[in-house]
Amino acid sequence: MQSIQASIITIGDELLIGQVIDTNSAWMAQQLNHAGIRVIRRVAVGDVWDEIWQALEEETKIADIILITGGLGPTADDITKPLLCKYFNGKMVVNQEALKNVQHIFENILKRPMIERNAKQAEVPDTCTVIQNKRERPQACGFNKNNKIFVSMPGVPYEMKGMMEEYVIPALLQQFKPPHITHRTLLTAGIGESYLAELIKDFETALPSYIKLAYLPGYGLLRLRLSSTGGDKEKVEKDIQQQFDELQILVKDYLVSNLDETMEEVVAKLLLSNNKTVSTAESCTSGHIAQLFTAMAGASAYYNGSVISYSYQAKEDLLQVNHETLTNKGAVSEEVVIEMAKGALANLKSDFTIAVSGIMGPGGGLPDKPVGTVWVAVASKQKIKTNKFQFRFDRQRNIQLTAMNALNMLRQFILDNP
Amino acid sequence: MQSIQASIITIGDELLIGQVIDTNSAWMAQQLNHAGIRVIRRVAVGDVWDEIWQALEEETKIADIILITGGLGPTADDITKPLLCKYFNGKMVVNQEALKNVQHIFENILKRPMIERNAKQAEVPDTCTVIQNKRERPQACGFNKNNKIFVSMPGVPYEMKGMMEEYVIPALLQQFKPPHITHRTLLTAGIGESYLAELIKDFETALPSYIKLAYLPGYGLLRLRLSSTGGDKEKVEKDIQQQFDELQILVKDYLVSNLDETMEEVVAKLLLSNNKTVSTAESCTSGHIAQLFTAMAGASAYYNGSVISYSYQAKEDLLQVNHETLTNKGAVSEEVVIEMAKGALANLKSDFTIAVSGIMGPGGGLPDKPVGTVWVAVASKQKIKTNKFQFRFDRQRNIQLTAMNALNMLRQFILDNP
Repeated sequence: MQSIQASIITIGDELLIGQVIDTNSAWMAQQLNHAGIRVIRRVAVGDVWDEIWQALEEETKIADIILITGGLGPTADDITKPLLCKYFNGKMVVNQEALKNVQHIFENILKRPMIERNAKQAEVPDTCTVIQNKRERPQACGFNKNNKIFVSMPGVPYEMKGMMEEYVIPALLQQFKPPHITHRTLLTAGIGESYLAELIKDFETALPSYIKLAYLPGYGLLRLRLSSTGGDKEKVEKDIQQQFDELQILVKDYLVSNLDETMEEVVAKLLLSNNKTVSTAESCTSGHIAQLFTAMAGASAYYNGSVISYSYQAKEDLLQVNHETLTNKGAVSEEVVIEMAKGALANLKSDFTIAVSGIMGPGGGLPDKPVGTVWVAVASKQKIKTNKFQFRFDRQRNIQLTAMNALNMLRQFILDNP
Repeated sequence: MQSIQASIITIGDELLIGQVIDTNSAWMAQQLNHAGIRVIRRVAVGDVWDEIWQALEEETKIADIILITGGLGPTADDITKPLLCKYFNGKMVVNQEALKNVQHIFENILKRPMIERNAKQAEVPDTCTVIQNKRERPQACGFNKNNKIFVSMPGVPYEMKGMMEEYVIPALLQQFKPPHITHRTLLTAGIGESYLAELIKDFETALPSYIKLAYLPGYGLLRLRLSSTGGDKEKVEKDIQQQFDELQILVKDYLVSNLDETMEEVVAKLLLSNNKTVSTAESCTSGHIAQLFTAMAGASAYYNGSVISYSYQAKEDLLQVNHETLTNKGAVSEEVVIEMAKGALANLKSDFTIAVSGIMGPGGGLPDKPVGTVWVAVASKQKIKTNKFQFRFDRQRNIQLTAMNALNMLRQFILDNP
């Protein structure tokens, strides 16, 4: 069966000068993938007429669906709308519903006068299907040409997401009836890509050709994904599940989850199912672990809070770390993370805690504690487990690696001491 | 003068299924831009032979420089190296220096046996110039064809960054001698894009054609950038500075900085120059403000630490918020952020503090406190200033908006009460 292919065109000078990291494309690709639509290319071009035009021409050749984001703002450098109007042989007209929507937002929500620039946002090419934006900014425009679908959406993530979920994905499903995509994803930790590949070499070689294996590495983590497109749904589901069961056994020593979820989701579910709470005492990661917990809605059910003790003083005052331990052993030591963990358990009244202290770089390295030295403690009232890590290189990577390894330590600690 | 144009090709199925957010391209674009090289397109394709080949063909038509990342891992789905070998009519040979490097890393740093898969990483096409990777993974390969430069680099950010800085950018500068690019960027806060555009409409219309103005919006922030490529360096510098001075006067009520820096960098510099320290007491942002401070190396000079008080209990125990205030006024109230700020100043012994409490969504909204309601206090021992914000929509956006607005409040507070 021929798969349905999509291209994503992202428009904006800010992408080509590196001012903005494109998070939209990844999110859109996820949604399309789940809907059985394969993303074949992603292209980013500037706010330049010829380059946008050329991108439309090229992507039309290879894709059935062309999703366009960006370049719809109210300022002079945003040219996507007039360009699409020309590309699809239309003329600009005021869309009354869009105008009412913009007026409503300014009068009742923003409570600011609407200026002409904002009213212009209600203009659309007369050759497009208008998809209203319930939020304050431009609507999306859908075009149909030679059996291909084009949708132009705003580049602001929360606006684009709303439109994709409410209108675009359902409309694409209806028009294209894409083939069934089957995925099975598992999450491992504590093993490198080369070693894992070696471990499952025979499995990989023996995989039937209609099942693909992908390695998806992250900081301190590695996902393995089996996927198959099309075919008899029931048979494929059964075959892929059988392979997935075999794969889980092969990687069992490193297996964190047999679902497509994050390490923090796995830990959160463990805490919830055991009806336990957690806190963190963070020095070098400075709240990154706390952030991972609280980025999930509903975190207050299992997450109490954190102390970020960057200075000696904060470690002493808020976690009751002994001044002598700090001066004798140094802030990055097993003794200090143990005292931090005890302080956090007592002060934040949680069942479990994670305490971390390390040297993230680029400065601060010592002869016996080079950059990347990190001590982690995970603890309950009854028991404490510690581990020393030696990471390398850059600050941001060390923070991420510390967080993932600390969460994995807590996961194993809860499983061993529920 | 003809500008030097670059395309970035990013290779990897993980980009097309949305498993990974591409942060490399933005960083590379920034570096190229600063070096006077214009990025004309960014393309992401999967680990698929024909699609990579096609991308090379297309980008060769429009760019002088083609930078390629990804697809160089040790697993079977990584096909970039053999493809480039064929594209540039070479054959694979072992690069002795690369092999020694890989051996050294496994023996002396990783202290693990090297497996054949790793040794294979030392193979390169014989038609390329090898750029050694001082880190553990694949080297970069440079190719020259029809006066165009191609460089293939690993997709792991810290490896790619090292190679770009040490070899690629210097080599490109030497070969292409790109035209001088002049930028002036300023940062504003507290004004929307439409309103700012209205405010500087006449300025924008009167700009000479060789100076471009770009609007670069962020959460709660808006950057304005003037730029010019080529021309007489001294004259352009003088002209652009004159326009930039005029622009600063027009936006003075919203001006945060006349340098290309972040809000947190501005606040950090203010603290350092006043020899003051800061702490945070965060509920709804859960350490996001702390993270912004500590993402900057050297933060311990002005940043003491934070209390993330997600629960009532943590607010009471670690910040001495009165139980009565919490029950009578609710956690999201002016009274509570004032008590949180006082607690943080006392316990974290800092000169300034930021306290925030709000409802980030999607759940937790109340009739009188809908999702997006946030109270912020900024304080010194002598003075406290509070502000209520009403944001909307999604959790992640509200966290970012809260952090930026809170930092801007602190910035103004320090300027008013140094």
